[in-house]
Amino acid sequence: MKGVQEYIEKNKDRFLAELFEYIRIPSVSSVSAHKQDMYKAAEWLKEALLAAGADRATVYETEGHPITYAEKTIDPKLPTVLVYGHMDVMPVDPIDLWKTPPFEPEIRNGKIYARGADDDKGQGFMHVKAFEFMVKTNQLPCNVKFMIEGEEEIGSPALTKWCVKNKEMIKSDIILVSDTGMIAQDIPSITVGLRGLAYWQVKVTGPNRDLHSGLFGGAVANPINILAKMIANIHDENNHITIPHFYDDVLEASNEERELLNKAPFSLEEYKKALGIAEIHGEKGFTTIERVGIRPTLDVCGIWGGYTGEGSKTVLPSVAYAKISSRLVPNQNHEKIAQLFKEYFENVAPKCVKVEVESLHGGQPYVCPITIDAYKAAEKAYQTTFGKQPIPVRSGGSIPIISHFNQALGTKSILMGFGLESDAIHSPNENFPLFNFFKGIETIPYFYKYFAESKK
Amino acid sequence: MKGVQEYIEKNKDRFLAELFEYIRIPSVSSVSAHKQDMYKAAEWLKEALLAAGADRATVYETEGHPITYAEKTIDPKLPTVLVYGHMDVMPVDPIDLWKTPPFEPEIRNGKIYARGADDDKGQGFMHVKAFEFMVKTNQLPCNVKFMIEGEEEIGSPALTKWCVKNKEMIKSDIILVSDTGMIAQDIPSITVGLRGLAYWQVKVTGPNRDLHSGLFGGAVANPINILAKMIANIHDENNHITIPHFYDDVLEASNEERELLNKAPFSLEEYKKALGIAEIHGEKGFTTIERVGIRPTLDVCGIWGGYTGEGSKTVLPSVAYAKISSRLVPNQNHEKIAQLFKEYFENVAPKCVKVEVESLHGGQPYVCPITIDAYKAAEKAYQTTFGKQPIPVRSGGSIPIISHFNQALGTKSILMGFGLESDAIHSPNENFPLFNFFKGIETIPYFYKYFAESKK
Repeated sequence: MKGVQEYIEKNKDRFLAELFEYIRIPSVSSVSAHKQDMYKAAEWLKEALLAAGADRATVYETEGHPITYAEKTIDPKLPTVLVYGHMDVMPVDPIDLWKTPPFEPEIRNGKIYARGADDDKGQGFMHVKAFEFMVKTNQLPCNVKFMIEGEEEIGSPALTKWCVKNKEMIKSDIILVSDTGMIAQDIPSITVGLRGLAYWQVKVTGPNRDLHSGLFGGAVANPINILAKMIANIHDENNHITIPHFYDDVLEASNEERELLNKAPFSLEEYKKALGIAEIHGEKGFTTIERVGIRPTLDVCGIWGGYTGEGSKTVLPSVAYAKISSRLVPNQNHEKIAQLFKEYFENVAPKCVKVEVESLHGGQPYVCPITIDAYKAAEKAYQTTFGKQPIPVRSGGSIPIISHFNQALGTKSILMGFGLESDAIHSPNENFPLFNFFKGIETIPYFYKYFAESKK
Repeated sequence: MKGVQEYIEKNKDRFLAELFEYIRIPSVSSVSAHKQDMYKAAEWLKEALLAAGADRATVYETEGHPITYAEKTIDPKLPTVLVYGHMDVMPVDPIDLWKTPPFEPEIRNGKIYARGADDDKGQGFMHVKAFEFMVKTNQLPCNVKFMIEGEEEIGSPALTKWCVKNKEMIKSDIILVSDTGMIAQDIPSITVGLRGLAYWQVKVTGPNRDLHSGLFGGAVANPINILAKMIANIHDENNHITIPHFYDDVLEASNEERELLNKAPFSLEEYKKALGIAEIHGEKGFTTIERVGIRPTLDVCGIWGGYTGEGSKTVLPSVAYAKISSRLVPNQNHEKIAQLFKEYFENVAPKCVKVEVESLHGGQPYVCPITIDAYKAAEKAYQTTFGKQPIPVRSGGSIPIISHFNQALGTKSILMGFGLESDAIHSPNENFPLFNFFKGIETIPYFYKYFAESKK
């Protein structure tokens, strides 16, 4: 990949200006008020892909948000890489914790600060620019397809159907994704495992209206107190999840695998310091790396009910809500877990309240063997640009669509993530270091090179 | 009290028009945006009291919201009645559950619907109109003082100091209050016991920022899960409060008293039906009447944390909050309980989070002996207008200032409440039946009459 560093150096200001344009579109998929912004982002991306060198690019309508698809075929006999990414971003609240407005990107201390700077506008755009480099310098060694969706943060409901329907069109030898992280700027890593996800909204209804807590308190069930008790009972004293059959399908990691996992560089003191916590907290019998890598979890993502305004209001509320999510590990099935939780939570509810559980979205866990050609090609790419062999890691995060690709298309995904833990994705002040952004653009073309060579 | 029914009949439209004017001032004491409305309400009331016949009326500034004070002295040798009430109202949320706007009173099915229709604008205004009747018909048998505050719903912080400072000015033989309820329109009752109140806001802090629940979930304490567990642990399996020494000072009711209490008309089936619940829920070993009358409680009035918007956001939040209140019974001390809870809650917190408890307000419980002259006078007043002896009841609600009057001024309060349980005070669609409003205006003058006679 001759001249890649020079190309980046020469065009870096333009690359950033373009990325900033993309980021400024507030494409929050979970908030219906941003529906039109999803179209803006999709159209913007279409134009960007055409400008970078795609033969054709199209914005596909779906039942939900649109999908931008583009392709460049140089020779049907060459292998095809399908780049997957997402243009949608997470909501920005709590907005008051952002130092600068989330959709007005700003560079501070060598980092781009904005919602989507990393996840996944910044990382996704690296692929557009790496593609541009290969096209403009006549070094593209594979056919390329881009499939960028607008619903990753809400579980990819449209893409799930769309990619089955368009199976022929999007056919590829490997799917390439940058939507994960690496251990550190000097410790490259490739994610080979992803946790699955199940997500529910729970509604607990007590009396048919908010009551005076003095006149009724003590005699009528308070839905917040009941919800708290029900949430508390999901974990036992060892932080083991108590839902019957929850762990039935978990593929327990072997002792050897656990030993290997725990060799990854990790300082508990630095971890605690970075998070501002005095103690870690998790399932007994597992290390922090294991807790986020090979163990399923159950976390409350949100809770609300009663009076939450300024000052004090004595009320016994009628309703309380919680959003609860579970991270799943191979071999758990998100649909089965969704049903298990729903049945459990509705059944353990005391008769003094009514409990309704709605399943919002889910995804299967995923594992990529480190023996396949594509993994080896990625490994070599990092070795070329970082001078180091990347470490294969199991991430705690979920990209439900990745396991869907595996099942529905029969195609593996290579997760060349360039994010850092400090990027604060999904949080206020999300950021992406310029180093990582440009290093990504530099590394990606080598993947194409080595992958094409491996198929010769 | 000659001609009281005729006077009411003749003036009822004006009485309602005046009350509606008063209600339209959105005097929500706990929301700082309504600060000016508190002054508007105070000034409005001052004018209303002067028009009704007060010798003088003044709006007193305080550190918080203003107090309207008025008096009419007819003869220093006659007994003095101090009328206490409050012009502030509760917040209106959840606003979407109101059938008509809370500050635009409307009469439907013989009831006034509005925030404050009962609590305590409607009930307080009955006293202004009863006073007007006695003045205009030259039948006022006592000296009268009015002390109407603007902070009852937030624990009366200003009045607590103000009434000690103005002890001489507000000196009286009895304090008369309508801020409670009666059993039914045909079953008059007088509240002789009030529960005390302690109110806290709890903040649970986990990591220093919202985290990605995939990358950190399972390894870092989730403050919502922890808060839920802590709330769950406040009650044991019998719904007994587990805070050490919480019940130490509770004056246990005798078996005889409990027997008497349970003779009050009460249908569990109707109670459940009215609230739309399948089962009641409370402390084991006590009836519903006992649970709200003689037992202390601990209820979560509000809870919030994490993502509470539309759709699903996977986040491990940094902070979770709860507003928690406790109803106290004689002989519990709210300051002691406030401290007990704070110490307990902060101490049982696991090290993986930081827990802060702030005490927002409180009040002592109160009991009025049914043997004093003033109680007997009230009893006779009800007998005159309802044709029935009122039942003395212990209410579950709290009016912290009442016990403060008892302690600081040495003056008992008579709680002639005309509200009904169905008035939905503190809730959406608060209402007050016209029957109760006019019956209150009719009954109050008889209290003055019999009380003055008892002092001759």
